[in-house]
Amino acid sequence: MSNQAVDDAISTMVISMAQRARQMAPLLARSSGAVRNRALERMADRLLAQQQKLLEANQRDLDAAGEAGLAPALIDRLRLDEAAIMAMATGLRQIVALPDPIGEISDLRVRPNGMSVGRMRVPLGVMAIIYESRPNVTADAVGLCIKSGNAIILRGGSEAYHSNQAIAACLVEGVTEAGLPAEVVQCLATPDRAAVGALLRCDRWIDVVIPRGGKGLIERVMQESRIPVIKHLDGICHTYIDRYADLAMAMELTFNGKMQRVAVCNATEILLVHQAVAADFLPPMAARLHQAGCELRGCPRTVACLAATGVPVVAATEQDWDTEFLAAILAIRIVDHFDEALAHIAAHSSQHTEVIVTRDHERAMRFLREVDSSAVMVNASSRFNDGFQFGLGAEMGISTDKLHVRGPVGLEGLTCQKYIVLGHGQLRS
Amino acid sequence: MSNQAVDDAISTMVISMAQRARQMAPLLARSSGAVRNRALERMADRLLAQQQKLLEANQRDLDAAGEAGLAPALIDRLRLDEAAIMAMATGLRQIVALPDPIGEISDLRVRPNGMSVGRMRVPLGVMAIIYESRPNVTADAVGLCIKSGNAIILRGGSEAYHSNQAIAACLVEGVTEAGLPAEVVQCLATPDRAAVGALLRCDRWIDVVIPRGGKGLIERVMQESRIPVIKHLDGICHTYIDRYADLAMAMELTFNGKMQRVAVCNATEILLVHQAVAADFLPPMAARLHQAGCELRGCPRTVACLAATGVPVVAATEQDWDTEFLAAILAIRIVDHFDEALAHIAAHSSQHTEVIVTRDHERAMRFLREVDSSAVMVNASSRFNDGFQFGLGAEMGISTDKLHVRGPVGLEGLTCQKYIVLGHGQLRS
Repeated sequence: MSNQAVDDAISTMVISMAQRARQMAPLLARSSGAVRNRALERMADRLLAQQQKLLEANQRDLDAAGEAGLAPALIDRLRLDEAAIMAMATGLRQIVALPDPIGEISDLRVRPNGMSVGRMRVPLGVMAIIYESRPNVTADAVGLCIKSGNAIILRGGSEAYHSNQAIAACLVEGVTEAGLPAEVVQCLATPDRAAVGALLRCDRWIDVVIPRGGKGLIERVMQESRIPVIKHLDGICHTYIDRYADLAMAMELTFNGKMQRVAVCNATEILLVHQAVAADFLPPMAARLHQAGCELRGCPRTVACLAATGVPVVAATEQDWDTEFLAAILAIRIVDHFDEALAHIAAHSSQHTEVIVTRDHERAMRFLREVDSSAVMVNASSRFNDGFQFGLGAEMGISTDKLHVRGPVGLEGLTCQKYIVLGHGQLRS
Repeated sequence: MSNQAVDDAISTMVISMAQRARQMAPLLARSSGAVRNRALERMADRLLAQQQKLLEANQRDLDAAGEAGLAPALIDRLRLDEAAIMAMATGLRQIVALPDPIGEISDLRVRPNGMSVGRMRVPLGVMAIIYESRPNVTADAVGLCIKSGNAIILRGGSEAYHSNQAIAACLVEGVTEAGLPAEVVQCLATPDRAAVGALLRCDRWIDVVIPRGGKGLIERVMQESRIPVIKHLDGICHTYIDRYADLAMAMELTFNGKMQRVAVCNATEILLVHQAVAADFLPPMAARLHQAGCELRGCPRTVACLAATGVPVVAATEQDWDTEFLAAILAIRIVDHFDEALAHIAAHSSQHTEVIVTRDHERAMRFLREVDSSAVMVNASSRFNDGFQFGLGAEMGISTDKLHVRGPVGLEGLTCQKYIVLGHGQLRS
């Protein structure tokens, strides 16, 4: 077949999947919470029962990745073992335990004319999830979507193709064993990249697309999608040490925010320090970070402040203030006052997570109110911006959008509220 | 200047406006509710004080519209009189009386590690409102945006150019008299259509665009915008008369839904009637509608049902079931059973407003749960889907999107919630 013919065939297949998902989504939306929970339980059972098959499929992907010369970090992300399969099953059972968001009625109030007006929480409809590398996302994403009554179309990374297919087969079995139509969980059965483009044009049948992966993937989806996108781009997170900070606490929070895990979106990338405490705070902080293997990049005053300590610090470039390092690198800037910290954050933040360390109540409150990020924290580690840590029970990602959902996307973020009206013949005059 | 030079000049002007709005938006966002209310009060004062100027500006638009041969209905929409100016001022004062949505903290709960996690309501940032004809939208939109802490860029219809400029001048005076920067209310000072395209490319500085107007405008904005859009497209609203309906009530609700005002998005366009009650219900209903000047278009069974009555009814085309008439026209279809009504709605609804008339509790509940529209009603007129009628106090439009806000867009729809965390040194382990 010519390239065009292949593209057309893929496009036809993708449209047909999207149409089947749209057609079956209402059946799922009106199923009971018990049926949706049973589907998740059965999915977990199937994953554990099919462990051997999953490991074999994963081995095919690992072999191909090795031959293709994939970076060791990527191969590591790709790897499934018994513990990873158990974790997927456990994750699904944790979602079962969460309250059913669907059908919840809130704010039902009686209007002066006697009719009641309220809101009912309902599924969004059909979701497309486009993701990379980690095959466990397959189970997480399906669990959250089915629990929230949404049909789902999966498109995993081509390097995890066999693993994803094997996992998805278990998940579809779970769905059908619970009596739901198989079409509410579909997995794109081709590693061809043209399939993503075709999927992003299915705005007639798909309600929302969620990309999970690197910046390249997310930017491609944003560029091409005719479907609304729930996304998160960079996490350029700031921790600001105020002049009224408890410096011992500030040291722990900075170290935890930066080093607890470095390749994640809620890691602290930029440290701002009030000039009044820089001389006391920065030398021991820098020494500790350096000892732990963290590279330091400082503004000129930071470099001067650390000059006598022997801790290596390179001059930060302008570019550093706008970089998500995703590595053991910290950029440090000394600010003259609180408002300069706010101004730096306003100019450079990616609106993901910002932290202030202070004992001053008014500054804490101003920081909370004025910093415009998905999560704003007082005296806590930036690493807490996470659906599990916030008590949502699970998450599909962390949104840095402002519309619809901001911060961790849990079950509620996968639903919407429609208005309901209960009347007894009310007319508008 | 060449066309290209004009376009470049307009684009530069629009970008500069958007940048100024973005720069000043944080000042507005952190202003107190008292200051924002004072701005709205002053706007109302200025509109009343400048009544003569507004009427003169409006006359210029009316003269131009007459010369251009605009349709009388459009000229009517354009017209301002003393009552319309008073209504704008009153509308602003009604918004003053609404509770301040900004800064509200909800769901603040203590996590097991002792930190509190909750959500704070904040403005979206910078809004662009693109609208047609009615100049009173200028005041409504600015009132809602300023109350909710959002900077606003207005782009009204070119036929209302002088009226909109005069109204906006009053509104900017109100803002500055309250001590807020003038740049939080800006009005595009050119009737050139290229300005809309330039505005829709300002995704770096503008957070949301809301089109208010006809389908052509909304589709253009959806096509061109790189900024997220809150929109509503068609209102193809259904009223379904169930076999268990109170037929006297059904008659009133149908008549009110269709005829109370016909050129609006929440008017009933399609009437579905259960076959068991069609013979009793349709002949008197059709006679009453016909008498009031409503054209009837029926399915074959409806035509047969009305044949002996002498009430004229034309055969409905397939197209009619998917048409927003915005006129005194009603398409009528007899369905065999409740599920056929649901299926018709699922296939043809624009997800705006659907009504069931029934005394049966289970059918009422199924309709509420299963019909996927911005408002779903039992025994009430479709005309109630409206921000004022629902108790939101005001509205920016009615969203048929599912993401972010569904149904009437009031103050809450112009805000978002960020997470806040109050800790005392919590670290992630």
